[in-house]
Amino acid sequence: MRNVFSLGSTDGGARRGRLTLTHGVVETPTFMPVGTAATVKALTPDELRSAHSQIILANTYHLWLRPGLETLVEAGGLHRFMAWDGPILTDSGGFQVFSLQARRKLDDDGVTFQSHVDGSTHRFTPESVIAFEEALGVDVAMVLDVCTKLPATREQLEEAVRTTTAWARRSREAWKSGRTAVFAIMQGGLDLELRERSAREIVALDFPGYAIGGLSVGETREEMAATARACAALLPHEKPRYLMGVGTVRDIITAVDCGIDMFDCVYPTRCGRNGRAMTRSGEYSIRNAAYTRDFSPVDPACDCFVCTTYTRAYISYLFRTNEMLGPRLLSYHNVYLLNDLMRGAREAIECGEWQSYRDDVLEQSS
Amino acid sequence: MRNVFSLGSTDGGARRGRLTLTHGVVETPTFMPVGTAATVKALTPDELRSAHSQIILANTYHLWLRPGLETLVEAGGLHRFMAWDGPILTDSGGFQVFSLQARRKLDDDGVTFQSHVDGSTHRFTPESVIAFEEALGVDVAMVLDVCTKLPATREQLEEAVRTTTAWARRSREAWKSGRTAVFAIMQGGLDLELRERSAREIVALDFPGYAIGGLSVGETREEMAATARACAALLPHEKPRYLMGVGTVRDIITAVDCGIDMFDCVYPTRCGRNGRAMTRSGEYSIRNAAYTRDFSPVDPACDCFVCTTYTRAYISYLFRTNEMLGPRLLSYHNVYLLNDLMRGAREAIECGEWQSYRDDVLEQSS
Repeated sequence: MRNVFSLGSTDGGARRGRLTLTHGVVETPTFMPVGTAATVKALTPDELRSAHSQIILANTYHLWLRPGLETLVEAGGLHRFMAWDGPILTDSGGFQVFSLQARRKLDDDGVTFQSHVDGSTHRFTPESVIAFEEALGVDVAMVLDVCTKLPATREQLEEAVRTTTAWARRSREAWKSGRTAVFAIMQGGLDLELRERSAREIVALDFPGYAIGGLSVGETREEMAATARACAALLPHEKPRYLMGVGTVRDIITAVDCGIDMFDCVYPTRCGRNGRAMTRSGEYSIRNAAYTRDFSPVDPACDCFVCTTYTRAYISYLFRTNEMLGPRLLSYHNVYLLNDLMRGAREAIECGEWQSYRDDVLEQSS
Repeated sequence: MRNVFSLGSTDGGARRGRLTLTHGVVETPTFMPVGTAATVKALTPDELRSAHSQIILANTYHLWLRPGLETLVEAGGLHRFMAWDGPILTDSGGFQVFSLQARRKLDDDGVTFQSHVDGSTHRFTPESVIAFEEALGVDVAMVLDVCTKLPATREQLEEAVRTTTAWARRSREAWKSGRTAVFAIMQGGLDLELRERSAREIVALDFPGYAIGGLSVGETREEMAATARACAALLPHEKPRYLMGVGTVRDIITAVDCGIDMFDCVYPTRCGRNGRAMTRSGEYSIRNAAYTRDFSPVDPACDCFVCTTYTRAYISYLFRTNEMLGPRLLSYHNVYLLNDLMRGAREAIECGEWQSYRDDVLEQSS
């Protein structure tokens, strides 16, 4: 498969790049909103576009269970099913399956698990997951990996790295479609020796992109930042780097500074549904009584349609009366904010002003 | 106050007219979606516009309790609060208050009731309700009336008519704003002698429009249709006629045929939230297993963005996975459908083809 990534200017550790995928171009660094069940919760594809989302993430685990392969293939693939014509990245389901704990059983060949929906038994292997993602027609497919919750023992982490590498190799061999780029995932927890081993092994397999998995799973913010920085340095300069599960303003900015190109997280939409507003100058709960008579925008520094149309008082009222429009509007704003943060980061890197951009954002949001 | 209504062509009983209100022109017959709490549930003002809604309804009872007069005035009125710049009609709260049953006490001067939100005590009088609606800056304000559930005794209905007339007179005197047109409400249940008395008394007060209240409250569909027809004939030809609380395809078409110009109902949005799709050829539940692999539109005869973008299979999936996008999309389609039905009715009346339009719709939807 052709290289999907071209690296432009860099500024300090931060990188300005471009992914050229089957369904379009993605300027990096980029944030990917999460559309777990073939929908970024509360938002339409048109709204994702107008909020400047370039690529979205969907979850293999959820789509495998419902609506399932046959329906998705009959629909003409995931893009047509959900009416999003831009790039899609699917995670492998590894993270969800390993979160099931008692309801899954790992062996060398794959993992057997019970559906959280109806208790039915399913099996993921590296090959079946890649075949599923390819059949959906996604732009980027993640390999099946073994994700370990932190804290974990050295033995657990070592075993996870061993299996993840073996499965990455099988995924590489299973990968058939020229329309789908397969990315491998690095594991190893906070153990830099294991991270180095994991990186070396998967990089040797020559994937078009690499993700840092196994972070944002229980460690402190400082541990995550330090590990992300070390991990980024272990990955090839010319390939895209994706830090999985990160979605706060501070964490993203810190990770861009480490040389990360791609992020995903449910954070902005989950916050939006729960009445938590994200702004460049910090987060707040719109349900707070202080906002019932506040006729300023959710984020005075934001130019999204929510901030230019509605007031805190109105959105606060929508949440207090449990009106669906509240979660809709705040989810939109939060996604817009992260996309706008990324746009600003890309411009700053291009202009050689990354460090001041980074410092401004971190200072404002503290 | 100037006349707000001009009557164009008629065809049989059906009427083609135009309301000229402070926030815009409304072509009749028209359907008004209900925005109880300053939001038509699940939809934005932009979506209401694109679904061809010309005017929306909001509820005095709910807005009085939350966010309350002060917040709404400070926001610059209801239009600015909810960011809808088209016409708004507010009901008077009479219907909601009289639904409270044990939690309200009626006297000649007004009605005292307890909030369903926090149990606090409030009082509506004809004057306080008109003042509230005027302060909100709405285009059409309904008078406070006494709405009786059916079945009711002759004495109950007679008392409701007596009080409703007395309150209509006081509302007429309390009405100050030239920006708000006040409409009176006819009561009398299924008793045509009382309906005649109610109509005669309120028409004598010379309001710019008249509503038929006290229907769609427990009677059969046939009783409602017969009473609506008789009531419409009791109202002045040159004034708009509004049948409150009616919102199914068949009921609306039947009522247009009786000479009704305006309708409101929570029906299309409530159905939308519950997975019930309205079409010209009848209603169905999108949750039905039959639709999980049905890749046709919600309504193949509809050209709304939901029907031209998404499949039954996808929307059915959204409902089964409890995704908020499902209620959003189906609410939009249902509102669009009723607006489109009204557009077709207006064209048919103009062309002298009302009877065949009516018969086609009634036959298709049976």
